[in-house]
Amino acid sequence: MTRCRKFAGFSEDPRRTTRTFLSVPMRDCHRELTSWAEAAGAETRIDAAGNFRAFYAATEPDAPRLLIGSHLDTVPDAGAFDGVLGVVLGIALIENLRGKRLPFGIEVVGFSEEEGVRFNTPFIGSRALVGRLDEAMLALQDANGISVRAAIEAFGMNPNEIPDARLQGGELGYVEFHIEQGPVLEELRLPLGVVEGLAGQSKMGFTFFGRANHAGTTPMHLRRDALAGAEEWIVAVEREGHRVPGLVATVGAVDAKPGATNVIAGEAHLTLDVRHGSDDVRTTAVETLIRHAEQIAARRGLSLQHRTMLSQPAVEMDSHLVGRIEEAIRKAGCEPHRMVSGAGHDAMILAEKVPAAMIFVRTPGGISHSPEETVNVEDVEKAIEAGTRLLNLLATSPVLQSRRTQRA
Amino acid sequence: MTRCRKFAGFSEDPRRTTRTFLSVPMRDCHRELTSWAEAAGAETRIDAAGNFRAFYAATEPDAPRLLIGSHLDTVPDAGAFDGVLGVVLGIALIENLRGKRLPFGIEVVGFSEEEGVRFNTPFIGSRALVGRLDEAMLALQDANGISVRAAIEAFGMNPNEIPDARLQGGELGYVEFHIEQGPVLEELRLPLGVVEGLAGQSKMGFTFFGRANHAGTTPMHLRRDALAGAEEWIVAVEREGHRVPGLVATVGAVDAKPGATNVIAGEAHLTLDVRHGSDDVRTTAVETLIRHAEQIAARRGLSLQHRTMLSQPAVEMDSHLVGRIEEAIRKAGCEPHRMVSGAGHDAMILAEKVPAAMIFVRTPGGISHSPEETVNVEDVEKAIEAGTRLLNLLATSPVLQSRRTQRA
Repeated sequence: MTRCRKFAGFSEDPRRTTRTFLSVPMRDCHRELTSWAEAAGAETRIDAAGNFRAFYAATEPDAPRLLIGSHLDTVPDAGAFDGVLGVVLGIALIENLRGKRLPFGIEVVGFSEEEGVRFNTPFIGSRALVGRLDEAMLALQDANGISVRAAIEAFGMNPNEIPDARLQGGELGYVEFHIEQGPVLEELRLPLGVVEGLAGQSKMGFTFFGRANHAGTTPMHLRRDALAGAEEWIVAVEREGHRVPGLVATVGAVDAKPGATNVIAGEAHLTLDVRHGSDDVRTTAVETLIRHAEQIAARRGLSLQHRTMLSQPAVEMDSHLVGRIEEAIRKAGCEPHRMVSGAGHDAMILAEKVPAAMIFVRTPGGISHSPEETVNVEDVEKAIEAGTRLLNLLATSPVLQSRRTQRA
Repeated sequence: MTRCRKFAGFSEDPRRTTRTFLSVPMRDCHRELTSWAEAAGAETRIDAAGNFRAFYAATEPDAPRLLIGSHLDTVPDAGAFDGVLGVVLGIALIENLRGKRLPFGIEVVGFSEEEGVRFNTPFIGSRALVGRLDEAMLALQDANGISVRAAIEAFGMNPNEIPDARLQGGELGYVEFHIEQGPVLEELRLPLGVVEGLAGQSKMGFTFFGRANHAGTTPMHLRRDALAGAEEWIVAVEREGHRVPGLVATVGAVDAKPGATNVIAGEAHLTLDVRHGSDDVRTTAVETLIRHAEQIAARRGLSLQHRTMLSQPAVEMDSHLVGRIEEAIRKAGCEPHRMVSGAGHDAMILAEKVPAAMIFVRTPGGISHSPEETVNVEDVEKAIEAGTRLLNLLATSPVLQSRRTQRA
């Protein structure tokens, strides 16, 4: 936690923590991580996508490797733990081995970019590991017109070496420790959760069209109030969220036109965000909500338009790895709560290529993306203990053994 | 109607009709009105508040006078009839007398300002007649820093003569013809309505405070969604509007903070506009809606703030004059519909000093404050006929006779 708080001082802004992709303070993070990792017996490098990589070798040179990591970049005015905790915790786990070698190597990864702040596109770091940091993405420009490629060069790396950042195959898996950024574990009074999947997400825009009219001269029964229709639907969205277990459905923004106190709204624009671990449940919920909107519009003499901005499928975590993590958390003396992550994480990208899973650490008040973000020291202790137990379990795992046999 | 359409061309903007207080095109209106009124046998002047005044004398010099009028200014991108119709119709009524004198004089007034566009304050013209165009109002500035006083001087009048614009006492009453600007008469298939009162109005701001949170990581049951609470209340506002006869209740603007697709709203700001002909009914409805909001907030763990921006009492029209107008409309072959005006008009100001009433002319589609605003030629004919009948009725009215006696 002291290390995380130290990193919070490595910022582009002297008054608050803001650390975007390959910004200058990222060098301070790399320097500190390098010194800690090398002291613990790991070899380090910064790959061409700007990811910090520390490799702690196995007992044998051809052994598979387990990836442990999270991201080093932050949102503007960030807290100290989102991302950073998972990287620093990976270092702590190899330090705790005190030079002891396992039948698999451990690579701690500090991803250069996950939040999507600088280029309005997330996961630049982890995409490099799965071979998806392509030319189109390298051409993206930030607010100052600097491309991803130029940012990489300016930091002193060679974009042509991005292929060397890729996973080489035969990885045992990827484990990501991350703060929950939600209130579920706190509500359950549990320090740790096992993420068995990352929710799929639908982002949509809805517009109800009615007729703008004078709020004083138009009697109630002669109105076609777009906002009143929209409101009725928002209540239905909330009800659907409550009705379907595990579903979250949110209208976060609404805009009424013309938007004057004394004018009945002729248009109401809304956003919809729906997430669930099952794509079937999510798409059914979205269809139900569209039908609700159509019914409300028809009954009120309004017309309706909707468009889908994003429909991202759910990602399952590796069931074997999830089982092992559960076992490890239990051995650390905690009840492991299986949960679906409502937010995206690097594990979602890594899961395309390797067995991946996540461990969530309780987040007081569910507060994140804020300087008030924190963690409990006892929970971090439990996370480190669960991580150590996990390494032991994997070292003796029959599945791991058989995978090694297959490799050989 | 041709005259009204001609006035629509007297505009500050060559592509649309915009004519604010004492703007240059107001001179064109004054010139035309002067020529028509003088041809009909009236004496004209522009008073120091910029109001056009045409006096058509009675049979006797000490006779009381009946005021007929409306306003000459417009909103930006206006239609051709809002305001102007009532002035031009007053001229038509004295033209129709063809020199015949009545036992009362007729003063046609074209108010200089009713819409409140230039100085963000309405009724500058009619306030001068009731003695309420005071120093504070003369000091108001427009967007260019020009005061009301300076605008009056620039137009060539002397602000010190404003007291001469005042009513002199002994006026018989004020009659205003105006387009309805609403859909009620059209819905009832009636050309004319009698306004028996102008609704009182409450304008309020409401804010629901919840907790902004991640739309993906915060389960439904752990949310304090300010927008969902606000929506539930908007539905209650609409229901209250339907439940109470004659009430109109509108939420025209809503703003959720932070207003992002993936963030549960921590704040929702709304406007409320409530109007009714009875102040008791209106204030009871507002209290009911505040109580609803408080209950919703309490149940959802939200907090609530509300503030009153305006609480303007209802204004009753003169019951004698309303009765005579009803009679006149009936004699013109129409069914007079008694109604409450949901919008403010000059008659509201004049009613402070003289018996006042209004005649509404059906507005196709209820459309106003738009170039699409129009009237039916048959309805205007009926309005002129009703006006002529009203003059005849008042000329023989026992009440008018007795008032003259009191004066004498």
